[in-house]
Amino acid sequence: MTAIRVTYDVTLEQGETAAARARDIALEQTVELPEGRYPAAIGEQIVGRVESASPTERGRARLVIAYAPAIVSGNLLGLLNLVFGNISLKRGIRVVDVELPPDVLGAFRGPAFGIAGLRQLSGAPARPLLCGAAKPVGLSVPELAARCGQFAEAGVDFVKDDHSLADQPMARFDERVCRSLEAVAAANARSGGRTVYLPNLIPGDRDVFELAAIAADAGCEGVVLSPWLVGLDVTRRLAAEGRLVVFAHPTFSGALLGKAHGMAPDVLYGLVGRLAGCDAVIYPNAGGRFPFSEATCQAINRRLRAPLGALAPAMPVAGGGVAADSVAHWVELYGTDLTFLIGSSFYAADDPVAACHKVVEVVHRFT
Amino acid sequence: MTAIRVTYDVTLEQGETAAARARDIALEQTVELPEGRYPAAIGEQIVGRVESASPTERGRARLVIAYAPAIVSGNLLGLLNLVFGNISLKRGIRVVDVELPPDVLGAFRGPAFGIAGLRQLSGAPARPLLCGAAKPVGLSVPELAARCGQFAEAGVDFVKDDHSLADQPMARFDERVCRSLEAVAAANARSGGRTVYLPNLIPGDRDVFELAAIAADAGCEGVVLSPWLVGLDVTRRLAAEGRLVVFAHPTFSGALLGKAHGMAPDVLYGLVGRLAGCDAVIYPNAGGRFPFSEATCQAINRRLRAPLGALAPAMPVAGGGVAADSVAHWVELYGTDLTFLIGSSFYAADDPVAACHKVVEVVHRFT
Repeated sequence: MTAIRVTYDVTLEQGETAAARARDIALEQTVELPEGRYPAAIGEQIVGRVESASPTERGRARLVIAYAPAIVSGNLLGLLNLVFGNISLKRGIRVVDVELPPDVLGAFRGPAFGIAGLRQLSGAPARPLLCGAAKPVGLSVPELAARCGQFAEAGVDFVKDDHSLADQPMARFDERVCRSLEAVAAANARSGGRTVYLPNLIPGDRDVFELAAIAADAGCEGVVLSPWLVGLDVTRRLAAEGRLVVFAHPTFSGALLGKAHGMAPDVLYGLVGRLAGCDAVIYPNAGGRFPFSEATCQAINRRLRAPLGALAPAMPVAGGGVAADSVAHWVELYGTDLTFLIGSSFYAADDPVAACHKVVEVVHRFT
Repeated sequence: MTAIRVTYDVTLEQGETAAARARDIALEQTVELPEGRYPAAIGEQIVGRVESASPTERGRARLVIAYAPAIVSGNLLGLLNLVFGNISLKRGIRVVDVELPPDVLGAFRGPAFGIAGLRQLSGAPARPLLCGAAKPVGLSVPELAARCGQFAEAGVDFVKDDHSLADQPMARFDERVCRSLEAVAAANARSGGRTVYLPNLIPGDRDVFELAAIAADAGCEGVVLSPWLVGLDVTRRLAAEGRLVVFAHPTFSGALLGKAHGMAPDVLYGLVGRLAGCDAVIYPNAGGRFPFSEATCQAINRRLRAPLGALAPAMPVAGGGVAADSVAHWVELYGTDLTFLIGSSFYAADDPVAACHKVVEVVHRFT
């Protein structure tokens, strides 16, 4: 039988066996009924099948449960609900792997652009890409647009709105998009570059699709979205329109990454983000402001780039406090199919534009 | 100054002071820039203002940070991003309270029906309400519809689809809605009751609004939605249409409830759920299959019912393994402005309908 195979690392309760815990999860995530209180056919076809339940270190176990693809039927939220829906409300359960059979994978379109699409936009077939950020919230539209123009002139591939920029009275969305696009276009005209401006979309009075249409009509080629706020199916729908490159920001997702309870970062950002069609997935890099290890970041990179049915690879975007002078180091470690998102490190410099220009030179060395 | 006041309980790092940690959060959640690397006016108006930072027990501290309402500007996702966006990716930070000033609250419409609306639907001005569930996934439409009809005939106020029912080939959404409605209408006609059927909406080929329109056009008066899967702004939008009662299911939200890192359950379900306009908020009750304490459930009840600007109170729905024979006990503890969602406990009985009928009698005793 073809199956969705989920691997869980669990903390056992006092006196609980790995097999009992596995069976509890297999029931909770499917029929949500006590043992045997369902028709026999449902027990065979719908209840999760425990493939293995092995104690590991003291009090811990690794479980593999196979679920019927029919439960998901190509539905992304249905998949999340099956893998970690109700059991998210329990304790000591961590999703460390999700293996999808071809018939399930085939229902997902994945990134419309992906790594290849980003490279084409940037005219950079091989080197790492670089993204700057216009911030902070509170600045006026002319101030934010000027920052976009400056980073564009310094030669970044992308310049994005800060993920906190919505449609605040200090800098209204529509005007911000137009002025930032103009500033970047003017910089491109002066420098001969092709920087792409990415507005941030946070739905409010208008939904994501209305905001995206405004951006696309104004001439934007991509946007930043926060899937863990706006919803993964909304993200998937926008990506499936195929009109705009989608950069995914990880804000609000962090509590899902508990060491003992939650989902492994590579599954969350790498697999789920790619299934949702994100072309580029921002994560907090090791050595920055957030407690992500190098091994975790490598695992995210692998998931985004590895073969996955017919889905295009998505671009890993290392952010969250990447130091401008560490870029060459990370390229050696992570390879060149990588985008750097550098915000605070540029602003920490006395001359942010000069600091940016130096990193542009570094990434171009890998051409 | 009017402010959004957030209380965080944090675990301090080795050698870190409470004041330093508070300042780090205040910067990360607003300007996301190093100390001083922003215009002075932004430092005054936008950077979070630390109101207090007090060590509590060993290595822990309680912080109160005041944020400028202009950052949020009435945007629900903007509020979540401000309160716990980027810092969700750090460790040891728990949101225990969020206080909203009238100008922020005024931007939220809240529940269109709420407790009073549910009571009116059910014709039950004072007693606790009761909700049954048609499950499990894998059953055919006639089987699910028959279960709806049986619980309706037993006299529940609501009967809902299981939260795993989407648009699976085993029971297509459109047909399930029509047949379940018919079964409930027939039962109501026989019993003189007024049970309301609530289909579960999981977007896939069709979005939430299309599914909701199908349900409303067919004659449904309410639906079940999983805000932590479909997104809180999608939930808010649907609730704001004011056409359907919205029951919120907590699936996939549990990892946000970490004891050391995340959000307090009463803030998550009580405050955020109500801001999103949920009329009824399902949570896993104490003593059931999930590790929720009585104190936690009481806190959720309070948040849903307490005065909150002009927002209607929302109905607490105790679920997640409520034992049929414990209902009177919980009413004594929680009061009568409460709905019981009983699924597995009915199905565990040899005669689920008889078990349901007994609980109907119990809730009617509080009339």
